[in-house]
Amino acid sequence: MINFSVGPVQSCDAVRAIGAENVPYFRTAEFSKVMLENERLMLKFSGAPDGSRAVFITGSGTASMEASIMNVLTSQDRALVVNGGSFGARFCKICDIHNVPYDMIPLPAGHKLRQEDIDSVAKGNKYTAFIVNKHETSTGVHYDMRLIGEYCKKNTLLLIVDNISSFLCDEFNMAEIGADVMITGSQKALACPPGVSVIVLSPRALARVAANTPQCMYFDLKDALANQDRGQTPFTPAVGTLLQINARLKEIDAAGGVAVEVARAKELAEYFRGRIKELPLEIVSESLSNAVTPLHPTNGMSAYDIFLKLKDEHGIWICPNGGDLKDKIFRVGHMGCLSLEDYDKLLSALKEVMA
Amino acid sequence: MINFSVGPVQSCDAVRAIGAENVPYFRTAEFSKVMLENERLMLKFSGAPDGSRAVFITGSGTASMEASIMNVLTSQDRALVVNGGSFGARFCKICDIHNVPYDMIPLPAGHKLRQEDIDSVAKGNKYTAFIVNKHETSTGVHYDMRLIGEYCKKNTLLLIVDNISSFLCDEFNMAEIGADVMITGSQKALACPPGVSVIVLSPRALARVAANTPQCMYFDLKDALANQDRGQTPFTPAVGTLLQINARLKEIDAAGGVAVEVARAKELAEYFRGRIKELPLEIVSESLSNAVTPLHPTNGMSAYDIFLKLKDEHGIWICPNGGDLKDKIFRVGHMGCLSLEDYDKLLSALKEVMA
Repeated sequence: MINFSVGPVQSCDAVRAIGAENVPYFRTAEFSKVMLENERLMLKFSGAPDGSRAVFITGSGTASMEASIMNVLTSQDRALVVNGGSFGARFCKICDIHNVPYDMIPLPAGHKLRQEDIDSVAKGNKYTAFIVNKHETSTGVHYDMRLIGEYCKKNTLLLIVDNISSFLCDEFNMAEIGADVMITGSQKALACPPGVSVIVLSPRALARVAANTPQCMYFDLKDALANQDRGQTPFTPAVGTLLQINARLKEIDAAGGVAVEVARAKELAEYFRGRIKELPLEIVSESLSNAVTPLHPTNGMSAYDIFLKLKDEHGIWICPNGGDLKDKIFRVGHMGCLSLEDYDKLLSALKEVMA
Repeated sequence: MINFSVGPVQSCDAVRAIGAENVPYFRTAEFSKVMLENERLMLKFSGAPDGSRAVFITGSGTASMEASIMNVLTSQDRALVVNGGSFGARFCKICDIHNVPYDMIPLPAGHKLRQEDIDSVAKGNKYTAFIVNKHETSTGVHYDMRLIGEYCKKNTLLLIVDNISSFLCDEFNMAEIGADVMITGSQKALACPPGVSVIVLSPRALARVAANTPQCMYFDLKDALANQDRGQTPFTPAVGTLLQINARLKEIDAAGGVAVEVARAKELAEYFRGRIKELPLEIVSESLSNAVTPLHPTNGMSAYDIFLKLKDEHGIWICPNGGDLKDKIFRVGHMGCLSLEDYDKLLSALKEVMA
């Protein structure tokens, strides 16, 4: 199979070689060293401001989205939440569950965020935080983080950014944007197996974590941070995946860092987007990430049927959508160990399936 | 390295071969089939009563301990919690966090549970639930589940059992004991990488889950169960580890099931225990599981120093203890892909280190 899904994605040889080994015992100085290096490289690659910290959660990206809200915000806050798809809706639901008051900035599927979208919702100075999925992965819309960052600076808002699918695919620098929390996952452009997510916390977010006590043992970031001080975790983590993340972070560092990764995703995305023009496919996002191309078949075919045919007849995974968009949209990812030749195979299979 | 720790443990070739492969896309009929088979085999191997269900949580065993308490109990309950070590203490803390009233049955390190221990704490009929770590892994004490099961039946108590380290190592049958919740993890005798835990729920526990709304999206078992109906999960799970669990569960089934696994752990445990008599080591548990042998050096050596020497000079991991027990106790596991020859190597290394 060739995997163009939005995660899990294809891993490089070094990562898969670690997967073939027995997982080592981890309450050791050797594993602590790995975890401290993981933290250092995550801080570097996220452009985190001085004094930031990173913790590794054994759980999906949603686990870290929820842990971030639970530890950084309280019922005394009021947040603005961008909701342009199922991941925006997820942040709203997390705020509901944890009694964090918020106003929602609704965006139709495929629409980018404009200043007037914020202004039409945000009334007065009652806000303390801004919550956004930098890349609304469900519909492939990449929000303008400069716009959001400037708005947050002007209004002194804490900025919480789900960067799960855009990390290493599009430029992002926490210090420049003024972001306080950045979340990502192991199975997107980190190209490791799923099961680990990462939370990077600015000094301002860390002060909030220190002052709060979340009603959950597993998602207590104070405990995670205290353990990470010595390169450990409160509970048995996905040790194997953390070793794979280590190999991948070092590989990225050696190859030239984030800019090289972003350029690679951009090359794959542009190659594919440049060659679909002859197919009955329409890009349905006003603002694209290099991570994903969201497509609508204009020949009347069901997007989900195309997904099934590519899987069953061509040995290719693309990413279907759920809910209302199931028959309308599919997505093609540009993350993980993929080559231009892989896209040639996809394009030729798409031509056959859509003929 | 040879790994005699209490987890992660050594995996068989079939499990490691899956680790070497790319992780597949999972919103597919193919992955659903794997997950439904995983549920079926977990129900079979836990001896779950008719109408039970199993869900797979991407997280440590503690994640599933906490999810179980959050979804099955409320502030209207009153539980009896056995606390004979750090995992018993963890259940008490989880109850504190989630406002579940409880009375603690304290046991000194190494002591088994007797009827009088329960009777000295349990006053009146005010209890609704009993919570126990079947095997208090921190000190290697294996509690008498017949005693506990009978007490719960007599008093109509819901019985929640952390079976994380004892599953597949010691006999356990939910239906016979009358257990309502059984928790285990991927990295103990399932001998897969860490990162996934499993919760098996009896019909009585399922009715409780249906009636409760936990204050957490990630640990909402109603959502997990609704997704597992079709072999899926609410959020991206540790797909690779779930495929490895599938291979291992089928391997166990083909080899004769739980009884064969328990016999294998028993053989390893008895072989090792029979041969340490000439060493200055004392077993410090009144009631042993086949999973682990907890040992105290009687020659004045620090248990932690023995762990370090075996690791650094002999390429062997045993399991150190933390806190007060750090210098007093180390543990030797009998889980995972280990042979009698491996124990010969450990015994010879122990002789050298302790000479």
